[in-house]
This record gives sequence, structure tokens and C-alpha cells, in this order.
Amino acid sequence: MFTPQPIGFVSSPYQNTAEIPKGLGAKHEAEGVLKILPEFELGLTDIEGFSHLIVIWEFDRSPGFDLLGTPPSDNRPHGVFATRSPRRPNPIGLTIIELLRREGPLLHVRGVDMLDGTPILDIKPYLSSVAPDRLRRGWLAEAEARKKQ
Amino acid sequence: MFTPQPIGFVSSPYQNTAEIPKGLGAKHEAEGVLKILPEFELGLTDIEGFSHLIVIWEFDRSPGFDLLGTPPSDNRPHGVFATRSPRRPNPIGLTIIELLRREGPLLHVRGVDMLDGTPILDIKPYLSSVAPDRLRRGWLAEAEARKKQ
Repeated sequence: MFTPQPIGFVSSPYQNTAEIPKGLGAKHEAEGVLKILPEFELGLTDIEGFSHLIVIWEFDRSPGFDLLGTPPSDNRPHGVFATRSPRRPNPIGLTIIELLRREGPLLHVRGVDMLDGTPILDIKPYLSSVAPDRLRRGWLAEAEARKKQ
Repeated sequence: MFTPQPIGFVSSPYQNTAEIPKGLGAKHEAEGVLKILPEFELGLTDIEGFSHLIVIWEFDRSPGFDLLGTPPSDNRPHGVFATRSPRRPNPIGLTIIELLRREGPLLHVRGVDMLDGTPILDIKPYLSSVAPDRLRRGWLAEAEARKKQ
């Protein structure tokens, strides 16, 4: 397989995972900066036309993985591929962020949930959504329903 | 950084990239199977409750990268991070697929756009969408508008 290389690093207000909002109803409104390395800046051409980006990054401070885990949003265990747990076979994280503005190699964004200094692997434009009436959200919808009772 | 390892492989009707629908208005309705390796099957627990999954995979037949490229949906070049080009610094692909059913380690899905045999790196549940009225789609929306003229 390929050898991952950072294309840049996240500048985020979060120094520790305990500071990142988690669990049911957690909002990710924090602002941050995606600092792209100079040698990749040309790859950002025309990115400012997109309101939202998919950022793929490395959980670089999450050693090892668990196939089953209990997420902050529930009190029951679920398979790792049915959760956003950082303890994954490949420690790859994904965040949909809102692009506020670009300054050269710096992307100012809203919605960061990464730690400060997180290595960025890829950025892709967010192009389309699944319609809400077609979406089922499994255990998460059930946990939300139990919380409301 | 971490060393990527496949958690499984895609079974797809596409043997060559030329067979995969591309460009403006391309529909991805093809069915396929995500064959998860036995040692990772436990990580699929409760995944059947989700209608849509985010699949992260390797462009394993796409050597090298270009920072600028002209996508099939336009006749103008754009930065690689503003496109879904396979020729990326980290050859990571992402597909939102619809989960039709699970049979043990086999996930039967609709919407594959990967080649047969593609290594899968991660699967995450699709949890929420960006509202259409908040989404801007940059050069792609412009290319669509030009096509309609």
C-alpha cells in the first residue's frame, strides 16, 4: 500500500481530546486553520468556490484499535466501523468543515474537531448530500430517542 | 505516520476505469460487495442500522499525482483538492454508498464507483448532511450551468 504523507497540519483550539465536544448533540462550531504545506498550495486552486470540504486526517495520538467500543453518545458497545471512534485499524479521521476563507496556503474553517497539530492527508470538495428522508442512523437514532424519553 | 492496511476489498462490476461513469450528471447506481476480512468482522457490529456508509479506500492503480488537473466534468483545470481526481498526493478515495444488506463479513451496497479488488481502508457511518441551501459547489456548479446553456 501507499505511504501516507501530510499535505499540511490543522491549527485548532484543542490541545487535548477532553476539550473536544463529544456525545449526543455535540456541536462543532470551533474555528481553525488548515495550514497546507507550500509544495501542495497549487492543489488548492479554485477551492474557495466550495462552501464545505471533506478533510481526511490522521488520528496521530490514538495508538491501537478496538473492534468493539462504547462511544460517548451511547452506553452500549458498537462495532468500530459503525462509530467514529479514533481507535480504528487505520487511524483515519474525517471531518466535514465549512470553508470561511482562503489566504494562500491557509484555509480558515469552521467546525474543526481535530487536535492542534493533526496531520492532514487529503481535502476533497463536498459535492452532494444524502436526502434526510433516505437516511437511517441506526444505534445513534436509538440512543437519541432514549435520551429524549 | 501510520502504515495503511486493507480491512477488506471491493467486489465491483468495474475492471477498468473507462467503465466507471464520469463527468456531469454521472450516476453511480452499480451494486457491489464490500468483503471485509474475517479478522475485522466484529467491527461491523450494528452497522446494518445505517442506510449509508462512508467508505475510504486506496486508489491502488493510480500512480503519482498532479496538483492541477482537468476533470471529466469540466474543460478547465482545477486544483487536485478541489476535485475528486485519483491522482492525489495521498491516493485516498471516498465513496458514500447505500447499504442494502449485510451477510456476515459481506456488505451488499449500491453506488460503487471503485474498481474490482480495490483495498478498503475504513468504513464510517454517514450521520448527517449539509443542508442544500448552505452548500456552494464552486467550479462544478459553474460547469453545470454552462452545460445547460
